[in-house]
Amino acid sequence: MGAIYGIGVGPGDPALLTLRAAEVLQRVSAVMAPRATREGGSLALSIARPHLPASCAVLEAVFPMTEERAVLEQAWQDAAAALLARARQGEAVAFLTLGDALLYSTWSYLLRAIRRQDAEIEVVTIPGITAMSACAAAVNRPLAEGRAPLLVWPDAPPTDLAPLLEIAPNLVFMKAARHLRRLADMAEARGAAAVAVQRCTLPEQRVIGDLRDDPGRPDYFTTVLLQAEGGR
Amino acid sequence: MGAIYGIGVGPGDPALLTLRAAEVLQRVSAVMAPRATREGGSLALSIARPHLPASCAVLEAVFPMTEERAVLEQAWQDAAAALLARARQGEAVAFLTLGDALLYSTWSYLLRAIRRQDAEIEVVTIPGITAMSACAAAVNRPLAEGRAPLLVWPDAPPTDLAPLLEIAPNLVFMKAARHLRRLADMAEARGAAAVAVQRCTLPEQRVIGDLRDDPGRPDYFTTVLLQAEGGR
Repeated sequence: MGAIYGIGVGPGDPALLTLRAAEVLQRVSAVMAPRATREGGSLALSIARPHLPASCAVLEAVFPMTEERAVLEQAWQDAAAALLARARQGEAVAFLTLGDALLYSTWSYLLRAIRRQDAEIEVVTIPGITAMSACAAAVNRPLAEGRAPLLVWPDAPPTDLAPLLEIAPNLVFMKAARHLRRLADMAEARGAAAVAVQRCTLPEQRVIGDLRDDPGRPDYFTTVLLQAEGGR
Repeated sequence: MGAIYGIGVGPGDPALLTLRAAEVLQRVSAVMAPRATREGGSLALSIARPHLPASCAVLEAVFPMTEERAVLEQAWQDAAAALLARARQGEAVAFLTLGDALLYSTWSYLLRAIRRQDAEIEVVTIPGITAMSACAAAVNRPLAEGRAPLLVWPDAPPTDLAPLLEIAPNLVFMKAARHLRRLADMAEARGAAAVAVQRCTLPEQRVIGDLRDDPGRPDYFTTVLLQAEGGR
């Protein structure tokens, strides 16, 4: 029987792949790596590459950078169909995602598209190391401790941190590159500590200890960890 | 030069160790596995064990189940001193934690105690797979998607979910075993979907699709994923 694996390959460092992911990659007949961003797709594939059999096929999957739901839906349905065609013939195939497979990942949408087309096929998700865990490790700072909640914010930060900090003293802002100065101002106003990490675990990783330092070209993979007083 | 590694060994399945963690474990002279809960310590050690050299020492570290800060602080300082004594002699030593190393983990406290005693020694954190990522994978459900925030709640749930859901439609409740029925009621009142996973990725893993099903003895490792309408 065939199966479709959704594999979180971690934030970038190939050594942050799990043993389970490496084992599965060694026996798939095809992988699909999304090209959601210019860098994204090839990075996920390059992390997986050393583990793939020489005969492994690489399936095309371009998910356009659009918010048009119909366009995206079609892309997910096409990708699901391509994976299903092989799995139904008994092949093991894998869909690769950066970070964790079910946290702000294309795999979530694809999983739904697969299930819409086939309720029976075996679908296995293999979790991956999140960017936020890797960023915290890079700066040796806790994401959250004790009884204090953690809030992960994948969108542009709001104009006021107060409502967020009332709920959780530990905040993670993803894709935060264009908001560093504003986050610095808001953190300072609240007596919160903040640090940014760009391209975490990649050779070009950069830690921005003062968010007012000009990071140069905004980088898609920029995470900010912010902790209010008493967050521990 | 010696080094102290803080290693997240993942939620339980030994195959969810990262390649990097496995590589480091193969060359440490000593590991310390905390016994914060009766199960916790030995589980982290059993995950790491197959990778450890035969000569590897296992260091005692009992962190009592108390909220008395002075007692805990002494335990962390003692553990830090034991690791530092070896690292200063050039050894590589590791502290093991379940899940991720810096998300609700003893390593956060130990890291601080180490830094207080020694500002120079090399301290390396290796991130791990979080329980929530593993739980999401176990039930093939996204933790969060698109622009919708994710809130992780490590404590007893509040009496009203409304303030939380106003901030984030995706909620994760950790150590939620004693609150399943109440979470079920609150989820229903808000039209939210909820699922619980106990002892995720362990042989005795149990998925509780209806939180009103009696789970029997409350288990420390119980995670609830809750998603409000429009959470996607």
